[in-house]
Amino acid sequence: MPNSPSATLELADFIRSIPDFPKPGVLFRDITPLLANAAALRETVKRLADPYRDASIDVVAAAEARGFIFAAPLAIELGTGFVPVRKPGKLPFEKHSFCYELEYGSDTLEVHADSFAAGQRVLLVDDLLATGGTMRACCQLVERMGALVAGCAFVIELTGLGGAKRIAPHPTRSLLKYD
Amino acid sequence: MPNSPSATLELADFIRSIPDFPKPGVLFRDITPLLANAAALRETVKRLADPYRDASIDVVAAAEARGFIFAAPLAIELGTGFVPVRKPGKLPFEKHSFCYELEYGSDTLEVHADSFAAGQRVLLVDDLLATGGTMRACCQLVERMGALVAGCAFVIELTGLGGAKRIAPHPTRSLLKYD
Repeated sequence: MPNSPSATLELADFIRSIPDFPKPGVLFRDITPLLANAAALRETVKRLADPYRDASIDVVAAAEARGFIFAAPLAIELGTGFVPVRKPGKLPFEKHSFCYELEYGSDTLEVHADSFAAGQRVLLVDDLLATGGTMRACCQLVERMGALVAGCAFVIELTGLGGAKRIAPHPTRSLLKYD
Repeated sequence: MPNSPSATLELADFIRSIPDFPKPGVLFRDITPLLANAAALRETVKRLADPYRDASIDVVAAAEARGFIFAAPLAIELGTGFVPVRKPGKLPFEKHSFCYELEYGSDTLEVHADSFAAGQRVLLVDDLLATGGTMRACCQLVERMGALVAGCAFVIELTGLGGAKRIAPHPTRSLLKYD
């Protein structure tokens, strides 16, 4: 239905651009107006799901905290469960930890050891693809556990920061792209 | 449909109890098996929404990080938007900050200044009601901004910790209760 309200809803209209956050020279893309609008929120989840409806996704996973916002509704939309990828010390059961390098220093992500079964097809999601460091770590964590990365979905991609290349060969899809 | 699969699904079957986490003597109620199960996740969101379908909810709000998991799908289920309540320094736009006392020390929550309109009916949600400190702070934050707390919804309530009393007179609802 090309003339339905949802098909013509411009998600970009709900992104607020804020200069110099979190530091001077950075133009921050704020998703809170999109979250606050019922139609935009619903449509975002629907459009995140669309490319994966026939992709045999077994589970959706996301890193805290903003990844959690889209992961659970995306899982429900695709009829799967959701696996939270967390910062250290948050998960109570047996865990797999994954330490990864950042520009300065390193960071660690954790998932429960029973999160992914061997061969499961995992869809990873986050609100923003910037340098791709966190998503790359999530992909590696999924693969170390014997599961497969079926795709990496984002609401926003900052194309100038090389994130998609850093995540390759895993395919990325983004609803909105900014230089 | 009392015999439908969803009506008979026991959410408690998907909660894993883990002794001595995060510290000795604490029995942690782990929701990750519930999140991982597609039917349980979907049913949890449906049951969280049920009491509020005719409650004229304008917006759903939740504090990071685990509150985010249920807030966005609950907002979609109720046809509203979602407002994230965040830890300091995360939100880029004009903010309201709220500092609240904990057993030892204090903590701060922030929301964007344009998050709630005066008189809006806000449904707050979190995965767990323990002592209620964070939810109480969220309620106070909503009210300081001139909006109304229409309810506080939880997946799990630890009834022995007095959280519901701390949040009163705001009404709480929990899908699962443990002593």
